Amino acid sequence: MYTIGVDIGGMTIKVGLVDEQGNIVIKDRVKTNTDPYVAIKDTVELINKLLEKYNVSITEITGIGIGCPGSVKDREGILVYTNNLPWYNVNFREELKKYFNLPVEVANDANAAALGEVKYGVAKGYSNAVMLTLGTGVGGGVIIDKKIFSGSDGFGTELGHTTLVYGGKLCTCGRRGCLESYASATALMEQAREEMKINKNSKMWNYVSGDIMNVDGKIVFDCMQQGDESAKKVVDTYVNYVSEGIINMLNIFRPDIFIIGGGVSSAGKVFFDKIIKKVEEEEYGYAKVVIDIVPAKLGNDAGIIGAASLIG
Amino acid sequence: MYTIGVDIGGMTIKVGLVDEQGNIVIKDRVKTNTDPYVAIKDTVELINKLLEKYNVSITEITGIGIGCPGSVKDREGILVYTNNLPWYNVNFREELKKYFNLPVEVANDANAAALGEVKYGVAKGYSNAVMLTLGTGVGGGVIIDKKIFSGSDGFGTELGHTTLVYGGKLCTCGRRGCLESYASATALMEQAREEMKINKNSKMWNYVSGDIMNVDGKIVFDCMQQGDESAKKVVDTYVNYVSEGIINMLNIFRPDIFIIGGGVSSAGKVFFDKIIKKVEEEEYGYAKVVIDIVPAKLGNDAGIIGAASLIG
Repeated sequence: MYTIGVDIGGMTIKVGLVDEQGNIVIKDRVKTNTDPYVAIKDTVELINKLLEKYNVSITEITGIGIGCPGSVKDREGILVYTNNLPWYNVNFREELKKYFNLPVEVANDANAAALGEVKYGVAKGYSNAVMLTLGTGVGGGVIIDKKIFSGSDGFGTELGHTTLVYGGKLCTCGRRGCLESYASATALMEQAREEMKINKNSKMWNYVSGDIMNVDGKIVFDCMQQGDESAKKVVDTYVNYVSEGIINMLNIFRPDIFIIGGGVSSAGKVFFDKIIKKVEEEEYGYAKVVIDIVPAKLGNDAGIIGAASLIG
Repeated sequence: MYTIGVDIGGMTIKVGLVDEQGNIVIKDRVKTNTDPYVAIKDTVELINKLLEKYNVSITEITGIGIGCPGSVKDREGILVYTNNLPWYNVNFREELKKYFNLPVEVANDANAAALGEVKYGVAKGYSNAVMLTLGTGVGGGVIIDKKIFSGSDGFGTELGHTTLVYGGKLCTCGRRGCLESYASATALMEQAREEMKINKNSKMWNYVSGDIMNVDGKIVFDCMQQGDESAKKVVDTYVNYVSEGIINMLNIFRPDIFIIGGGVSSAGKVFFDKIIKKVEEEEYGYAKVVIDIVPAKLGNDAGIIGAASLIG
């Protein structure tokens, strides 16, 4: 048996056929049409194409899982709003039921990615996990008893939109000082640029072809490992921000495992060692917990596999 | 049938017999002995005294619920640690089972108070609630599907120990800038004293008999309502801190109702109106939720009733 995973992004919709072990056996993508109903029709066509190509009958499909950015009423299967597309109150479940007589589950993509890691990825075997995705923004996913926790209405666990710096930087959400504004990959690059402006001798300048906008997370971490003091300063400050956010979530959720996803998580051992050291120093209370803080495993396929994990 | 609620505090242990509607039919208290096993014996004697006095047989008791401050392994019934007493790894369930053949449940007191409000208090009928207790510290309780959520190990939902001000005031927990350091009743009084030092004309001076340490929450709110600009400034700043904490918890938990307990919650409508206005202004996202933000109802009896609500 197989599950269909649909990963809806602002630019492309990715569809994959996922087996019972969480492996993608075939996948493809289509450009995201700005009309949601056209996009759904495109998705349906892509699903049918993949079934035909892999020679799988619809009776071998257990259901369709959909992950999308934004606020999702997961119990109803409705995408209420997303920053990335002009889509409002799109009832994916109802629409897809017009084409397939199959269970359809819809979830916020960060939530689906967290569930994917628990079912098939780095947190396999655990019941309670928290995942922070450090990418363009900061996404949050919380798994309690092997299920997504998303609050009464499905809009919860916006972990990136909790205060880190009272009255701090203006966040994309309209508030000030959110974790997202300090711990996202975007924020790391901003912090690197600020440091580069102050320190013209930073090695980071050697990798940007004269344009400060070219700095990225990889350059910062590489320069730090080459001993550049300026890059080290950027990384240490960023690690403090991320760790503070992690400690907050540990104090709230006390999960069995903490997962970090998104582009920054590829910075590897040097980044995780610093995070773990900081968290252990500052964690709350007498009853400290020593839990694994680990990089997400599903990588580029997290969207499709996470969406597929919503079924069953 | 009745339930026994035991509210363990640093100074006194309160015991009450609670009926099926959540009313205390009889209650009494005993000084908290610093030896936990003597304290348990005292509690057992008090329970037996109350049963005799109210003429209730043990067969009419459904169980014993215990609320205590600190870190509790609620599944095992063990108080691991509390700031207030030299008690470590006290297995209340095991100890009480030596005296009574009854179910024994143990929980952190803030968690028990939240459950009490959902079962018998202001949040009756709701399934998902978050409660912040603004007292000496800031306690947190989270109810999901009518049950306490306390994380994998029972030590979670330390909502007061999440960052509000990065690198801010030193908190009792050892971290800096926790919500507790800005939103507790203790913090409100500190904020009032700071303002009084700057503004010697503040009306607040009229109520402290010359000693700034006598200022309390009631004085601050009373002076604000008399039009004192200085007290208004203190309240507005404090409301901003509390609201910021509430918004964070709404963004995470999206409950059906938000409860504020502790001494500050008695400030009444003027305080709640300000909180609600601020929260509505700043809440995250397109999909805003308009939920009730209400004062706790169980008041001084919250400890006993909350503890009793752990049973059944």
